[in-house]
Amino acid sequence: MRKAYRTFLLDLDGTVYRGKESIPEAVDFVKNLKKKGLTYLFVTNNSTRTKEMVAEQLASFGIPCTADNVLTTSMATAQFIKREKADATVYYIGEKGLTQAMEAAGLTYQEENPDYVAFGMDREITYEKYAKASLAVRAGARFVSTNPDVALPNERGLVPGNGSLTSVISVSTGVTPVFIGKPEPIIMEQALEMLDADKETTLMIGDNYDTDIMAGIRSGIDSLLVLTGVTSKRALRAKAQQPTYVLDSLSDWLF
Amino acid sequence: MRKAYRTFLLDLDGTVYRGKESIPEAVDFVKNLKKKGLTYLFVTNNSTRTKEMVAEQLASFGIPCTADNVLTTSMATAQFIKREKADATVYYIGEKGLTQAMEAAGLTYQEENPDYVAFGMDREITYEKYAKASLAVRAGARFVSTNPDVALPNERGLVPGNGSLTSVISVSTGVTPVFIGKPEPIIMEQALEMLDADKETTLMIGDNYDTDIMAGIRSGIDSLLVLTGVTSKRALRAKAQQPTYVLDSLSDWLF
Repeated sequence: MRKAYRTFLLDLDGTVYRGKESIPEAVDFVKNLKKKGLTYLFVTNNSTRTKEMVAEQLASFGIPCTADNVLTTSMATAQFIKREKADATVYYIGEKGLTQAMEAAGLTYQEENPDYVAFGMDREITYEKYAKASLAVRAGARFVSTNPDVALPNERGLVPGNGSLTSVISVSTGVTPVFIGKPEPIIMEQALEMLDADKETTLMIGDNYDTDIMAGIRSGIDSLLVLTGVTSKRALRAKAQQPTYVLDSLSDWLF
Repeated sequence: MRKAYRTFLLDLDGTVYRGKESIPEAVDFVKNLKKKGLTYLFVTNNSTRTKEMVAEQLASFGIPCTADNVLTTSMATAQFIKREKADATVYYIGEKGLTQAMEAAGLTYQEENPDYVAFGMDREITYEKYAKASLAVRAGARFVSTNPDVALPNERGLVPGNGSLTSVISVSTGVTPVFIGKPEPIIMEQALEMLDADKETTLMIGDNYDTDIMAGIRSGIDSLLVLTGVTSKRALRAKAQQPTYVLDSLSDWLF
């Protein structure tokens, strides 16, 4: 008999939408969760958007969602730093999602000799930002990066993700960052805490084996791979550790 | 008895000057080479400047030098591509030194579906340049990078060098570039060809063990480490392979 899951963590791109289009089976799935009074949280490695921006997009697809149903890797990064040092100074490089999360956590932006360097996806990256970050890390700042994804799909193909942009600083300084996003357990632990949920009754759902499913496996949380995105059945066969469930679509989930 | 060297390959920063100041012993050394009718070539991993810019700076220090005495890693990169495919299309990212070298070699700049992606130090790097380069490498373009230096000294400390900037593309695509500059043998072979010189009577002189001395060792060329720059006597002791000669200053060289 299958476990009675009470908490559902869901990935976004490839799982509930593809680019600018929703995946109708996923929309119905979340509506069902809501109807049954089950808890759900969207957990995303996209550091560029705020939780409000994510919630708005999901709502526009007809998904019942407010900002409280969203945990971005930027929020998790700010939270991680705040817990280590509540009054930390941080040199952060990133877009609106990271800036807002840092400000909301009450962390202070500082370019020279900060306690932390926090790196997130930044499509306005410059050499000067890299130089400042490298100097700070060499001077002893703790080096944190929102997520390790090396490539991102866009309409032109696969373009560099935050994991590759971050590598300039790690290669130059020899210091490996602490990554916060999936598949790291850090963001998963925060999700559980936010919801006051147990690992045993939580299910992680996503389309990407290397981030979503590995996040579940590494955190001791059951996982569901949905074949609507990155990872194919064929690619999955090559993996040593398998997800708890594999479905062609979320409409195949039996509540 | 010491070999009678006929050809001298010299590094620049840390060897003949330090930042904006010349090293007088090196100036005298090069004057002596000239007086004795010995051949010399400045071989630099700095891809941002043209050979004329380098020659002008050296001349301003009183070093006898024209553009013909300079081989930059940008020139070596353009030459490398030209030999593989004389009519190659190249998406190149870099500063004036690389642009001029590519144009001088008659290579065609092309952003989409080029035969080659050539990456050099670019203090105006943007996400869009990285995206274009990654898409091209994923589409099969051959990936070449001017030099592997991960860090550069400037007045603020060590800032990212071309090797770290290049890593965005290699980490994102999983494709390792062909590096051209020191310590790679490619630039050394080109230096010897340019001068029609023999390995046996050539000496590589530099201050950096990992680039200059390793370039000599890997190419089978004798090497002289001068302790006026990056590598200290202490750091040298830890190295398994030693340079042929070690001098505190080039004034200690006995002609």
